[in-house]
Amino acid sequence: MTIVPQEDRLNAQIAFAIEIDKLKRVIRRNHLIDGSRRENDAEHSWYVGMLAMVFGEHAPPGTDIQRVVAMLLVHDLVEIDAGDTFIYDPEAVAVQETAERAAADRLFGMLPPAQGAWMRALWDEFEARETPEARFAKALDRFAPILANHHNEGGTWPLFKVRAGQVREKVRVIEEGSPSLGAYALELVELSVVRGHLAE
Amino acid sequence: MTIVPQEDRLNAQIAFAIEIDKLKRVIRRNHLIDGSRRENDAEHSWYVGMLAMVFGEHAPPGTDIQRVVAMLLVHDLVEIDAGDTFIYDPEAVAVQETAERAAADRLFGMLPPAQGAWMRALWDEFEARETPEARFAKALDRFAPILANHHNEGGTWPLFKVRAGQVREKVRVIEEGSPSLGAYALELVELSVVRGHLAE
Repeated sequence: MTIVPQEDRLNAQIAFAIEIDKLKRVIRRNHLIDGSRRENDAEHSWYVGMLAMVFGEHAPPGTDIQRVVAMLLVHDLVEIDAGDTFIYDPEAVAVQETAERAAADRLFGMLPPAQGAWMRALWDEFEARETPEARFAKALDRFAPILANHHNEGGTWPLFKVRAGQVREKVRVIEEGSPSLGAYALELVELSVVRGHLAE
Repeated sequence: MTIVPQEDRLNAQIAFAIEIDKLKRVIRRNHLIDGSRRENDAEHSWYVGMLAMVFGEHAPPGTDIQRVVAMLLVHDLVEIDAGDTFIYDPEAVAVQETAERAAADRLFGMLPPAQGAWMRALWDEFEARETPEARFAKALDRFAPILANHHNEGGTWPLFKVRAGQVREKVRVIEEGSPSLGAYALELVELSVVRGHLAE
C-alpha cells in the first residue's frame, strides 16, 4: 500500500468502514411502514437522516440541519456492540448507557484520533440533547416510529403492549426539538387511540 | 390538523416521508460485507453517507462534504420506482435512465415546490458528475461494493461473472472523485485477482 499517502490514517478509516457495515445487522423492534418486517439500524439511520432534510424547516430557526444529518447517521453506531434497546423498557435503558459508552470508546477509537473525537462529539451531543441540533435529531428519532406505527395499524404498540400514556411521554421529546412536529405527532397518537390501534 | 402551521407543506412532507420508506425494500445485487445477505438501497445509502464522513479528507480540497452526504442520502431514491440496476449490465443501464428521470419527477414532485427542486437538484448534480461533490459521491458509491467484495472472497464478482477489466473501469470513476481512494481500490482489485476472487 506504499503508493497511498497517509497510509496509517487510511488503514484506520478502512477498518472502521468495514466495522460499521455491521450496523445493517442490528435489528430494531420497529417495523417498516408497510409492516413487512422489522427494520435494521442502518436503514433506520438513513431514514432519520432523510427526515432531517425533509422536515428541516420544523426545527428552530438557525438549527444547523447538516449537523443534524451527521448526528443521525452516527447516532446508532454504538448498537453494533450494545444492541438495540426498546425505549419502553426502562430497566434495559439504564443498563444500556454503560454498554453504549464502552461501544463509543471502541468504535470511534478505531479512527485517527482527531477524526474519532469529532465523530464521538457528534454522538455525545446527540445523547446529551442540550443543543437545538441534538434536540431536533432526537425528535426525528422519536417521530419515525410514531409515523410508522400510525400508518401500520399501531405496529409495535399492540405487539409490545405499549399504552398511550407512554407514547405521549415520547411525544414530549419531539416537542422539545420541534413544537410543530410534536403537535403533529400528538395528533397521530390521539388518532391511533380513537382507531383502537393504541390502548389508553 | 388545524393547529399545525403551514398545513399543506407539512402534509406534503409527511406523504413524501411515508413514500421513501419503500427504499428499504429495494434490493441491490451487492451483499453485506459478511456475505450474509443482499443489501437494500436504504442501508446502502446510509453506508455511503457514512463513507463520505469517514473518507472526506480523500476528496479534493474545498469539497463540501456535507453536500456530498446529502447527495448520497437521496441518490438512490429514484429506484423506488425504477428498481436497482446492476452496473455491469450496459443494456439495463441505458433503459434505466428514462425510468429514473420519471421517478425523480414523481418523487421530488411530492414535496413543496422549492424543497422538491432543491432535492432534485442534488440528484441531478450527482448524476451529472460535473462538480467535485458529485464526483466524490459517485466515487464512494463505486468504492463500497469493491470494498465489500474484496473482503468477501469476491462477493458478487464470481456470482455474476464480472471480470477484472470491468471492475478496473469502475475504478476509474473512483479515481475521478478521489485519486487516493482510486489508487487504494485498484490495489484491492489486483489483490482480488491474485487471490483468485476476481477473474482476469
